[in-house]
Amino acid sequence: MHRTYSMRNSRAPTAQQMATPPPPPSSTKTGRFFGKGSLAHTFRRTTAGSFGPDLARKLAQLVKMEKNVMRSIELVSRERREVAKQLSLWGEECDDDVSDITDKLGVLVYEVGELEDQFIDRYDQYRVTMKSIRNIEASVQPSRDRKQKITDQIAQLKYKDPNSPKIVVLEQELVRAEAESLVAEAQLSNITREKLKAAFAYQFDALREHSEKLAMIANYGLSLLDLIDDQAVTPGETRAAYDGYEASKQIIIDCENALANWTFENAAVKPSLSIRQGQREGGFELEDEPLRGEGMEDWGEQDKLGEQAEATTSEVPAEEKGHAPVMAA
Amino acid sequence: MHRTYSMRNSRAPTAQQMATPPPPPSSTKTGRFFGKGSLAHTFRRTTAGSFGPDLARKLAQLVKMEKNVMRSIELVSRERREVAKQLSLWGEECDDDVSDITDKLGVLVYEVGELEDQFIDRYDQYRVTMKSIRNIEASVQPSRDRKQKITDQIAQLKYKDPNSPKIVVLEQELVRAEAESLVAEAQLSNITREKLKAAFAYQFDALREHSEKLAMIANYGLSLLDLIDDQAVTPGETRAAYDGYEASKQIIIDCENALANWTFENAAVKPSLSIRQGQREGGFELEDEPLRGEGMEDWGEQDKLGEQAEATTSEVPAEEKGHAPVMAA
Repeated sequence: MHRTYSMRNSRAPTAQQMATPPPPPSSTKTGRFFGKGSLAHTFRRTTAGSFGPDLARKLAQLVKMEKNVMRSIELVSRERREVAKQLSLWGEECDDDVSDITDKLGVLVYEVGELEDQFIDRYDQYRVTMKSIRNIEASVQPSRDRKQKITDQIAQLKYKDPNSPKIVVLEQELVRAEAESLVAEAQLSNITREKLKAAFAYQFDALREHSEKLAMIANYGLSLLDLIDDQAVTPGETRAAYDGYEASKQIIIDCENALANWTFENAAVKPSLSIRQGQREGGFELEDEPLRGEGMEDWGEQDKLGEQAEATTSEVPAEEKGHAPVMAA
Repeated sequence: MHRTYSMRNSRAPTAQQMATPPPPPSSTKTGRFFGKGSLAHTFRRTTAGSFGPDLARKLAQLVKMEKNVMRSIELVSRERREVAKQLSLWGEECDDDVSDITDKLGVLVYEVGELEDQFIDRYDQYRVTMKSIRNIEASVQPSRDRKQKITDQIAQLKYKDPNSPKIVVLEQELVRAEAESLVAEAQLSNITREKLKAAFAYQFDALREHSEKLAMIANYGLSLLDLIDDQAVTPGETRAAYDGYEASKQIIIDCENALANWTFENAAVKPSLSIRQGQREGGFELEDEPLRGEGMEDWGEQDKLGEQAEATTSEVPAEEKGHAPVMAA
C-alpha cells in the first residue's frame, strides 16, 4: 500500500522493496498486437462528463469507469465458464481418474464464473447508488450558477449605474437565490454522505461474500486434487482402477452446501481493529461486543462504529437469502 | 451448481429455481455497440491448436483460453486502479470527512487492483504447468503415429504380397515402436497426473490467498465507512469538524498489517468435508487431525487426503514469504 496512506501522494520505494524484488511478471502481460484495452472502454472513459454540469463531471467519469470495470469482470466471468467447459472436454479423453477429476474441477471453476456473474449484479447496486450522488450534484449546479449570475449582475449595475432601482430588485432576488442555494447545499451534503456510505456498504458486502465463497471453492478444489492417483507407473504397468467417483461427488455436494449456507453472520474473515488516538496506546480488538475499557471514554465514535457495522451486516442477509436458493437448487 | 455434478450433462431448472427467480441482471450487461468480447480473444481461442498434433489440440485451446482469462483479469485490475484514483480525485473537492474517507477508500480499492495484478502472476504458474502437459501430449503423438503407420504397412503388404521378406523387417520394427510407445504412454500418464495436480494446486492456492485478502480489505473498508458523519444537517447548519484523520489512517495501517501477516496456516476459510461411501452414513468432519471412527477402516483414501492437503498447504508458504514483504513494504 501507499506508505503515505493516501492516493493523492506517492512515495519512493523503500530499501526493503529494493532488496526483495517482486516475482517475475506474468508472460501474458507482454506482446500485445491489439493494444492495451478495449476501444469502447477508452471512449467511454474519456467522453464521460464532458457535457454535464461541472460539479458532477468527476463523479460522472467515475460512474462510467465503474461500468468499464463491470464489463471487464463480465468478460472474465464468461471466459472462466468457457475454460471450465474446455477443461472438462479435455479430460473426457483421458483415463478414468483424470476424466472424473477434471470434470469436477470444471464444475468448481464454472461456479467461480457464476459467482463472478452474480457479483456484477451486486456491484451494480453500488454503481447505481453512486449515480444518485452524481444526479444530486448535477441538480445543485443550476442554483449555484443562478446565485453567481445575480451577484455578477449587481456588481455590474453598481459600477455602471449605482442609483438604478433595479439593484434593489436584484438584491431581493439574491436573497431568495441564497436561501434556495442553502437548501440545495444542505441536501447535497446530506445525500452525498448517506449515499456514499450505502454505496460502499453494497460494494464491500458484495466483495466479502464473493471472496469468501471463492476461498471456499478453492479449498474444496484442493481436496479434489487428492483423489488423483499420481503414483508413477512403469511402462507396461496398469494403474489401479479408479474408485473415487463417490468421494469426488461428495466433495462437490459439500462445497455446494457450504456455499448455500454462507451468511454474513458466519463469515470467516474478521477484521481486527486497533484504533489509537494520538500518542495514546489504547489499542483494542473489535469483538462482537465492543470492549469498554480505560481510555475509551473520549472515543465516542467507537460505539457507533460497532453498532453500525452490525446494522450493515444484519441488513444484507435478507437480500442474500433471495440469492442463495438459486445457487443451492 | 449443476445438479448432475458434472460439466458434461445439463439439467432442467428445478421448481425452487422457478419459484425464486434471480435478482435483476446488471444494467451494464445490455446495450453493447462493440460486440460482446474482444476480437483478439475470439481470434486466439478459435485458432488455438489448429496446427499442432491432434492429441494436444484440446489442451492447447485450454491454455490459450486461460490466456484470455488472464488478459481480462489484467483489464479489471488496471481499470480498478483507475477507479481508485478517480474516486480520490472526486472526493478531494468535497468536505473534509468525505475527502479523507474517499481518499482512504481509494487506497483500499487500489490495493484490490494491486492484488488482482499479483494474482495474475500466480495464475500464470498454473497456466505454464498446464502447458507442460500440452507439451508431453504433443511429443507422444509421433510415437503413436509411427506405430499406426507400421501396422498399416504390414497389413497392406500381407494383402499384396504375403511372402514378402519385408514383412519380417517391419514386424521387428513394430516391436521396437511398441516398446517406445509403451514408455511414451507411461510418461504421458505420469506427467499428466503430476502436472495436473501441481497446476490446480497453484491455481487454488493463489485463489485462496487472493480471496481471503480481498475479504479482509472489504471488512476494513466497512469500518472506514463508519467514520463518515451522516447525520442530516438542516439548511444553514454547519457540520461538526471532522476529527477522524488518525482513525482512518489507523484502519489503513491495520489493514496493511493484516494483509502482510496473512499466511496459509492462519487462513480463515476452512472446508468441512463429509465423505460417505455408498449408502453408509459414516460422515465426518475433516479436522486438523482426522478422526478414525467406526466405518472408516475401508476408506484408505481418506488418510492420504488429509496428509496431502497438509503437504500442499505447508509447501506454498515458502513461496508466499517471498511475495509478502513486497506488499508489506
